[in-house]
Amino acid sequence: MTAPFLEALAGIVGPARLAVDAATRDAAGRDALLRGHAPDAVVTPGSTAEIAAIARACHEARVPLTVRGAGTGYTGGAVPVRGGVVLSMARFDRILAIDAANLLAVVQPNVVTRALHDAVEAQGLFYPPDPASLARCALGGNVAEDAGGPRAFKYGTTRRYVLALEAVLPTGEIIRTGAKTVKNVTGYALTDLLVGSEGTLAILTEITLRLVPKPAAQRTFSATFATIDAAARAVSAVVQAGVVPATLEILDRASLDAVAAHVGRPMAPAGSEALLVVEVDGSEPAAVHDAAIATAACRGAGATSLVEASTSEAREAVWEARRELSFALRRLAPRKINHDVVVPRGRLPELYALVDRLRADHALSIAAFGHAGDGNLHVNLMVDPADTAMMQRAAAAEAALFAGVVALEGSISGEHGIGYAKAAYLGLQLTAAEIALMQRLKQAFDPHGILNPGKLWDTSAADLDGLTDAPPAP
Amino acid sequence: MTAPFLEALAGIVGPARLAVDAATRDAAGRDALLRGHAPDAVVTPGSTAEIAAIARACHEARVPLTVRGAGTGYTGGAVPVRGGVVLSMARFDRILAIDAANLLAVVQPNVVTRALHDAVEAQGLFYPPDPASLARCALGGNVAEDAGGPRAFKYGTTRRYVLALEAVLPTGEIIRTGAKTVKNVTGYALTDLLVGSEGTLAILTEITLRLVPKPAAQRTFSATFATIDAAARAVSAVVQAGVVPATLEILDRASLDAVAAHVGRPMAPAGSEALLVVEVDGSEPAAVHDAAIATAACRGAGATSLVEASTSEAREAVWEARRELSFALRRLAPRKINHDVVVPRGRLPELYALVDRLRADHALSIAAFGHAGDGNLHVNLMVDPADTAMMQRAAAAEAALFAGVVALEGSISGEHGIGYAKAAYLGLQLTAAEIALMQRLKQAFDPHGILNPGKLWDTSAADLDGLTDAPPAP
Repeated sequence: MTAPFLEALAGIVGPARLAVDAATRDAAGRDALLRGHAPDAVVTPGSTAEIAAIARACHEARVPLTVRGAGTGYTGGAVPVRGGVVLSMARFDRILAIDAANLLAVVQPNVVTRALHDAVEAQGLFYPPDPASLARCALGGNVAEDAGGPRAFKYGTTRRYVLALEAVLPTGEIIRTGAKTVKNVTGYALTDLLVGSEGTLAILTEITLRLVPKPAAQRTFSATFATIDAAARAVSAVVQAGVVPATLEILDRASLDAVAAHVGRPMAPAGSEALLVVEVDGSEPAAVHDAAIATAACRGAGATSLVEASTSEAREAVWEARRELSFALRRLAPRKINHDVVVPRGRLPELYALVDRLRADHALSIAAFGHAGDGNLHVNLMVDPADTAMMQRAAAAEAALFAGVVALEGSISGEHGIGYAKAAYLGLQLTAAEIALMQRLKQAFDPHGILNPGKLWDTSAADLDGLTDAPPAP
Repeated sequence: MTAPFLEALAGIVGPARLAVDAATRDAAGRDALLRGHAPDAVVTPGSTAEIAAIARACHEARVPLTVRGAGTGYTGGAVPVRGGVVLSMARFDRILAIDAANLLAVVQPNVVTRALHDAVEAQGLFYPPDPASLARCALGGNVAEDAGGPRAFKYGTTRRYVLALEAVLPTGEIIRTGAKTVKNVTGYALTDLLVGSEGTLAILTEITLRLVPKPAAQRTFSATFATIDAAARAVSAVVQAGVVPATLEILDRASLDAVAAHVGRPMAPAGSEALLVVEVDGSEPAAVHDAAIATAACRGAGATSLVEASTSEAREAVWEARRELSFALRRLAPRKINHDVVVPRGRLPELYALVDRLRADHALSIAAFGHAGDGNLHVNLMVDPADTAMMQRAAAAEAALFAGVVALEGSISGEHGIGYAKAAYLGLQLTAAEIALMQRLKQAFDPHGILNPGKLWDTSAADLDGLTDAPPAP
């Protein structure tokens, strides 16, 4: 990066907002995968106009530009694999408006998801998307990856809540997409095209989100099953009984064992191979009614135990297994490779059968749990990066998992995106014609390819070879 | 159109599926606006492969190609304003699958919306989008225009239900977008980009739709108000009471008068300036609870009468005013110009005030009714095309309406799209940079601009001058 270019950046944001020291660059180069590449410089603009000027400068100089929010992604979407400039959104952290009459909120992209939850719930409103990292992740990243979470089964993913965006094109132009209305058919759906585009098309600077009234009541219960197959079939039984729970989560035996070891007591009766956590919500009478139907459906599908939570303490206890899972898995192996695959709900039994084959064929510890209502499992390969043979087995298992998921009419990513981490597998799901079309769309936004290069179809072996692991935590 | 080109088309679809007679061409040239332009030829292919071959032929010969489904649109989206080939989807009329376990349906684009409703409801399932023309319109057009309807308030527009598409690019390539899962983040959201693209980007050949369980119960009531302002405020009161009705429709005095004249009895007590029709649905206890809350909210907002429907006959009676409206308006004037504007829900009173000003300033009869929950009104300018002065006043009122809606942070189209009919106003809502970006996206799909030319930003004065009115109905 040339000195005049760095001076130009400093001229835009002010010298105090441009960092080139190794510590700042290093910290801005990794996400939750703990693998990355340092940028050459980190800028922290304070206005949309400054972002437009940065984009123009990078566009003219052909310098890679990668946007960074909270850095909680699992596929490297925020990692500047080819160096260049990282644009930190740290100063875009304000909730600009909560409009109860129109059920919408206007936020800057670096607002933490939970902060929006808390702010709107204090007014009797509700923002449903709840990715597991909601205490740390930012709404801009949620939009960029179309984040989901347990409540997506009833309420949908982030996409369903994005009404309008302000964004800066890689060429420096500022656009506004969508409207403050749910209905809007005026030209192409740019808002929807930007959702899930993984930071490769435009830089989000303002987000208008749809809200819903906060449900007055919840009912929560857990059910155990003697086989994972019975649990997976119970998921379909609940839905076919006509109930759409807010959440319908599944934990397999490996997940339950990990939590039990972590908290020091069993999470399910002996002989349980699976646990479902079901939460229904709505008005008080609706929640009571739906809980009764869902409970009966689980009993009919062979539940071996049922624990209903009638108090908020009991509700927390039911959720404990699900909440502690991430921490619990850390005890099993130094690293988890978390793949968010998804299949049509009715094919969950086949997906679990596939996971069993992977365990046997590749001699790996695998914990598979997640959003059963959506057919969306987190398949966690538990590995030790120091064990080369194990890492090779994990790579083979990963390839078999993705091929199997596509064969089950599913998708290799339900909510994490592709980034660089799944780029090698994109061709399993998309044809050459589809990828070529996406490349032409990219070109329409970013003629010089400066914005977040090295992602999706654009990932090269050199990009991957240039990545380094984070040092072990102290 | 050259003889060799026509021979090539006949070679693709067979001579019996190519029509060049005036009657067929004329019928294929108009939509519900009753204004159009005849194509040079009409082809009726029977397979995706035939459609791909037609597209390739038109692409190579630079011949305009416009797709026609049911022809029920209100903005000319299916009108071949520059002639060329009309591709009729008439033979793509089958429901290919209804998958209860996975809550989805796979349909060909020319399936009539109501046919899908009937088929899925027979299995206890529900496809929510319900445009007013549902007895005649086709699902492909619903997707192309992101059609809404009364139930969109609770359930969302067509967009929320489209999971996956098969489509033919204007260059003849066949692509598949999306997946049979709600969650899917693999490359750009091509499915969502095609929804609402008004037949200008690709030719839809198969649609995979998400279904939901059929609600077990409904409760329906109507409420009258002494002022339109009070009714519009009641809409917000219902929502702020925490209830999301399936439908929340509003009729103004002009609409009520038209229905009363049509059916021969008053629709509301004397002195009523507005009527709300509210329907809640869900499980039986949920519907009962929500109806009580919504009724109380309307009373609190000053309802002058309330009619609750406890039987399905009573429910039909409540809906009568809304259902008869289209027919009733035909009595007021030879033609209605139906504009589907939308504003943030809380600004409905301001939108009705704007309509009042338009009536006064332009001496026009205007009936404004529609989907109040979404802030989406159908503003019908009642005109006589033979009255030149009136048509000029209507044109001025239309321009003032669109400018006013944009000033209210709304959109000039909530569910009908732009087509050629609103093209002159697109610049009110989109900037030059935004339109230029959309043009680049169009180019990425359709480098020669053959697919549905003369729409959106591409409409010229020559296009509009070339249109002719349908002959008066016999």
